[in-house]
Amino acid sequence: MPHLVVLYTANLDAESDIAALCRSLADAMLTIRDEVDRPVFPTGGVRVLAYPATHSAIADGRDDYAFVYLNLRMGRGRSDAVHRRVGDRLTAVANAHFAPLLASRPLGLTLQIDEGSETFDAKLGNLHARFGAQRPC
Amino acid sequence: MPHLVVLYTANLDAESDIAALCRSLADAMLTIRDEVDRPVFPTGGVRVLAYPATHSAIADGRDDYAFVYLNLRMGRGRSDAVHRRVGDRLTAVANAHFAPLLASRPLGLTLQIDEGSETFDAKLGNLHARFGAQRPC
Amino acid sequence: MPHLVVLYTANLDAESDIAALCRSLADAMLTIRDEVDRPVFPTGGVRVLAYPATHSAIADGRDDYAFVYLNLRMGRGRSDAVHRRVGDRLTAVANAHFAPLLASRPLGLTLQIDEGSETFDAKLGNLHARFGAQRPC
Repeated sequence: MPHLVVLYTANLDAESDIAALCRSLADAMLTIRDEVDRPVFPTGGVRVLAYPATHSAIADGRDDYAFVYLNLRMGRGRSDAVHRRVGDRLTAVANAHFAPLLASRPLGLTLQIDEGSETFDAKLGNLHARFGAQRPC
Repeated sequence: MPHLVVLYTANLDAESDIAALCRSLADAMLTIRDEVDRPVFPTGGVRVLAYPATHSAIADGRDDYAFVYLNLRMGRGRSDAVHRRVGDRLTAVANAHFAPLLASRPLGLTLQIDEGSETFDAKLGNLHARFGAQRPC
Repeated sequence: MPHLVVLYTANLDAESDIAALCRSLADAMLTIRDEVDRPVFPTGGVRVLAYPATHSAIADGRDDYAFVYLNLRMGRGRSDAVHRRVGDRLTAVANAHFAPLLASRPLGLTLQIDEGSETFDAKLGNLHARFGAQRPC
C-alpha cells in the first residue's frame, strides 16, 4: 500500500501522456505530509498502475467520450484530514495534467480513495528496504 | 460512479463481441429506474470498461475455460430493491449476450455489485454538464 | 468467487513467466482445505487473472523497479484462520516463484485478501456444474 490504479478509455493514449500522469501522481504522493509533518506514504510503497480499457462504453455513446477513474487504496487508520489532503492533491495533479483536454474534448474524471479492509496483508520483496526505515503503509 | 469493470479471459475476444457487451450493459444502465421512476444512473456517469487478462488460470486448467467477472461499483445509499433491480437487469444482459457461448463452451460468469465506501470522492471533467442537471451518482 | 487479480509492472513479463505464476496460484487454491478438511475453494470457482500495467510509476522512479499486487476477493464468512491459511499459502507460492528475481532486481510484492461485501451476487455459466456438487464460494 498505497496502490493507485488508473482505469481509462483507450482513446486517451493518443491524446495524453499517461505515463507522465503516473509519474506526476507518484511524485505528488511522495511529497504529501501528515498533520505532524511525516510523509503519508513511504517511498517504497508508492505504486501507480494505469490500464487503458480494451473495450468500453461511456454514457450514451453518441460522441468520442473519454473517461479516467483513479482509485487509491490506502492503509487503514489515517485521519479524514489526511484523506482529504491526499485527495485534493491528486485531484489537482489530474486536473493540471488533463487541463488541455478538458478544454477541448468530452472527458470525465473520477478520483476515489478507499481505506483497505483486508483480512490478510503481506508485504514482500525488497523495495521498502531500499528506502530505509520508513514506516510501511 | 457508477463504474462497471469487466475482467475476463482473453480467449473470449475471438468468440464474442465484448465491445458490444459493454454497449449493451451501458444501455441497460441508462434505462434502469428507481422506485419513484427516476433514472438510477445519470447519463454522464455510466462507464463500462472491459479488460481481457494477459495471463490467467481458471479452475483445474484442463480445458479452455472462459470466465467473465462483472463488478459494478455504485454510489452509497440506494435501496436493496434498486440494487436487485440493477443486478437482475445486468445479469439478463450478460446472459443474453453469452447465450450462444454458454450453450457451446465452458464459461463462468460472476456479477457482483458493491456499494462504494470511499473516504474521498471527486468528480471532475465535463461529462455530467453535457447531459444537464441530472443528480450525480 | 474467489477472484485473484494480479496487477503488475510490465517489465516483469520479460523476466518472469506470469502465466506459470497464475497456474501455481490456482493450483495452490485448489488444494487449500479448511478446519474440517473441506476444500476452501470450489474447483469451478478458482479464477486467477493477471494484468501488466500499460503505464506505471513506482517509488521514486530512479531505478527499473518492479511491483506485483495480488488481490484475492473471497466470499464472506470464512474464519480468520482460513484467511491466514490462504494468505500464507499464496504468499509462499509468490515468494517461490519470484525468488530468483528477488535476489537480483528491485521488486516489491503485496498480497491482500478482501472479503467481498457485495450487495448483489449472481453466479452464471456452466463451470460449477462441470465440477459437480461442490458448495459455491
